[in-house]
Amino acid sequence: MNSELVAVGTEILLGNITNSHARYLSNQLAELGINVLYHTAVGDNRERLREVVEMAFCRSDLIVFTGGLGPTKDDLTKEIVCQVLGIPLVEDAETEQRIETYFERLRREMPENNRKQAMVPAGAKLFPNENGTAPGIAVQHQGKCILLLPGPPQELIPMYQNQVRPFLSRFSSSTIRSRNLRIYGLGESKVDELLGEILDQENPTVALYAKEGEVLARITAKADVTQRCEQMIGKTEKQIREILGDFIYGVDVDSLEEQLVKELLERHRSLALAESCTGGLVAQKITSIPGASGCFQYGIVSYSNQVKESQLGVSSGTLEQYGAVSPQVAREMAEHARRNGGADIGIGITGIAGPDGGTPEKPVGLVYIGVATNRTLKAVECRLGRGLPDERASIRNRASLKALSLALEALHQED
Amino acid sequence: MNSELVAVGTEILLGNITNSHARYLSNQLAELGINVLYHTAVGDNRERLREVVEMAFCRSDLIVFTGGLGPTKDDLTKEIVCQVLGIPLVEDAETEQRIETYFERLRREMPENNRKQAMVPAGAKLFPNENGTAPGIAVQHQGKCILLLPGPPQELIPMYQNQVRPFLSRFSSSTIRSRNLRIYGLGESKVDELLGEILDQENPTVALYAKEGEVLARITAKADVTQRCEQMIGKTEKQIREILGDFIYGVDVDSLEEQLVKELLERHRSLALAESCTGGLVAQKITSIPGASGCFQYGIVSYSNQVKESQLGVSSGTLEQYGAVSPQVAREMAEHARRNGGADIGIGITGIAGPDGGTPEKPVGLVYIGVATNRTLKAVECRLGRGLPDERASIRNRASLKALSLALEALHQED
Repeated sequence: MNSELVAVGTEILLGNITNSHARYLSNQLAELGINVLYHTAVGDNRERLREVVEMAFCRSDLIVFTGGLGPTKDDLTKEIVCQVLGIPLVEDAETEQRIETYFERLRREMPENNRKQAMVPAGAKLFPNENGTAPGIAVQHQGKCILLLPGPPQELIPMYQNQVRPFLSRFSSSTIRSRNLRIYGLGESKVDELLGEILDQENPTVALYAKEGEVLARITAKADVTQRCEQMIGKTEKQIREILGDFIYGVDVDSLEEQLVKELLERHRSLALAESCTGGLVAQKITSIPGASGCFQYGIVSYSNQVKESQLGVSSGTLEQYGAVSPQVAREMAEHARRNGGADIGIGITGIAGPDGGTPEKPVGLVYIGVATNRTLKAVECRLGRGLPDERASIRNRASLKALSLALEALHQED
Repeated sequence: MNSELVAVGTEILLGNITNSHARYLSNQLAELGINVLYHTAVGDNRERLREVVEMAFCRSDLIVFTGGLGPTKDDLTKEIVCQVLGIPLVEDAETEQRIETYFERLRREMPENNRKQAMVPAGAKLFPNENGTAPGIAVQHQGKCILLLPGPPQELIPMYQNQVRPFLSRFSSSTIRSRNLRIYGLGESKVDELLGEILDQENPTVALYAKEGEVLARITAKADVTQRCEQMIGKTEKQIREILGDFIYGVDVDSLEEQLVKELLERHRSLALAESCTGGLVAQKITSIPGASGCFQYGIVSYSNQVKESQLGVSSGTLEQYGAVSPQVAREMAEHARRNGGADIGIGITGIAGPDGGTPEKPVGLVYIGVATNRTLKAVECRLGRGLPDERASIRNRASLKALSLALEALHQED
């Protein structure tokens, strides 16, 4: 079944809002095994909208419209779709009642033009709107299916999850399941090269997605039942693990910090941080995970030598002799963070995020990450700059990923 | 001049990435007075891409393609556009040289298939890629203009700003200038209500954009010369300032943290932070600004009572008597941060970010922010929860914005 998505609204074409439904619905339809072949956005304009509706009806089996269902004269989606398909609009008493109740609940008078939202295509299936006034609409016509869904995300997303998804799943004959393997420490092209033919498989498919400093390998299997999908995925995961081994840091997690917090909590271990060039970024990532307080209590942003000495405890001698950006200082930062925080693992990060502060010996992007446990103390040198302008955010992010990955490694080495 | 945007890439149709260029380019073209009438996304598929190219060439004067310029066999944009327009692809020696240099700089061997990226439409204008290998391309054909731009944002955005925008501005007969007023402390609907008729003006236009916790008012004027634009903008800015006053925190800056760092540096003042529920988010925001080390040296993430006592200096009595989430503790955190960091302003943040840890007296979203200077010490109570699920990130972000805004206020009150 081939489908396409049409977003209606001039505010999208003006760049006032992002057409975020395109991605959301694409993901959702892919899960049902429905191919999305086009995304279109068009403004609140009769002629252009009509052309888009006609073309979509020609080329796709399922067309999902979002937006343009509001009460104003600019909201045209329903009218134009009905004109093109030759279906009359009829008043729906139940919808009218729902809209009236909606305004009563808000203790506001119902504007007269909201009555327009109770006009629906004859014979359509309706999806009542729990969070607004425009109902969702499904029209089946000449073997095709047209969905009209409201634009506001807080209306669309619950409506899709609770009503539209169950409605659409009838069009999907097979079950689709995915598993996400998270990879850190290898670039996308390297993973691509290592996995080779596995990436050409048809079922399950393996697709790679790169985001800064990380790669995601998604295994997707299609079969008649879930169990069969899981078996197929398991087999492919095993093949991939034989090749990538420890570069895979987690399965079906969103990030290194999520995996780290999960494992720290499972093992009843704790982490403390001393950050210089990352300036709180690692602490922020860790504390973004609910429950992080169970494994993380202390972080310091020591953005000057004085603070490194007075508040963290790095020795002035080490700072003078080796400079703040040095493996020696990274190690001391890690060890003092561990002690000050009463933690099992301490991480210290010092480096040059740029754009200024680099020298030929210590260029922008040079970062030392210290790792302290009760048994080991080490520092790792990273060169994270690529000589490009505006790298500050990238260097800080790459340093934070490396720090999280070293903390995870230290946790594994405890065993 | 009517334009449309076409994004090429199956990863967009699968929902793996958001087509964020659509919004970015729409905004940019609107600034040049170029109307965008359609957004389309299509996959890496010869036939469907060809149909989209043909249709776009029929209906629009300017077509901007993004993506599909990579080195692999799936990258088809350039080939299909040239086929449709009947323009041959020719080797460009300078581009080939640039690509070779790019790989030399990375100390990696150039894969053979990257040579494909040096093939360009005959007679095209090229935009060298400073951050990647595929050049941007402009083809003028039968009175229309077709732009082919690389998909990765870190390549597209600098290329657009530095090269494509100046190239396109020739198609715009008038000059367009914008000024961005950043607003904190009022919701979008409140700003909308207060500005009233100003928002209906035709030239300059005033448009509101809301992002979490903030509003941006963009004034855009169109005139024959820059000076006239600036005059018109100045007049409208004055009107808006009379209404919104101190709720406007900055002009043409990107964020509260940028404005705060700028003003701290200008006034030779410094800030220190003690964060509990924001977990380093405020420190991270401040240190994301280049040069922040000139006004920020010390931040602590004190995620437990013990660390608040032993590393920050909050008294155990205060913690026991009032609890960690209290105005008393927020004040002590702010004052100790200020002293420990030897700073002019100290900010302390303690609260309940959720999802767990709330009680009827101290619900999720309750946050106290302490502000300490050498003359004043206070705490502000904020209720940042809305009773929705998954609010942790929003609560932390809203708390960080409030903290930044209170720091700015403290700085202004010094005068």
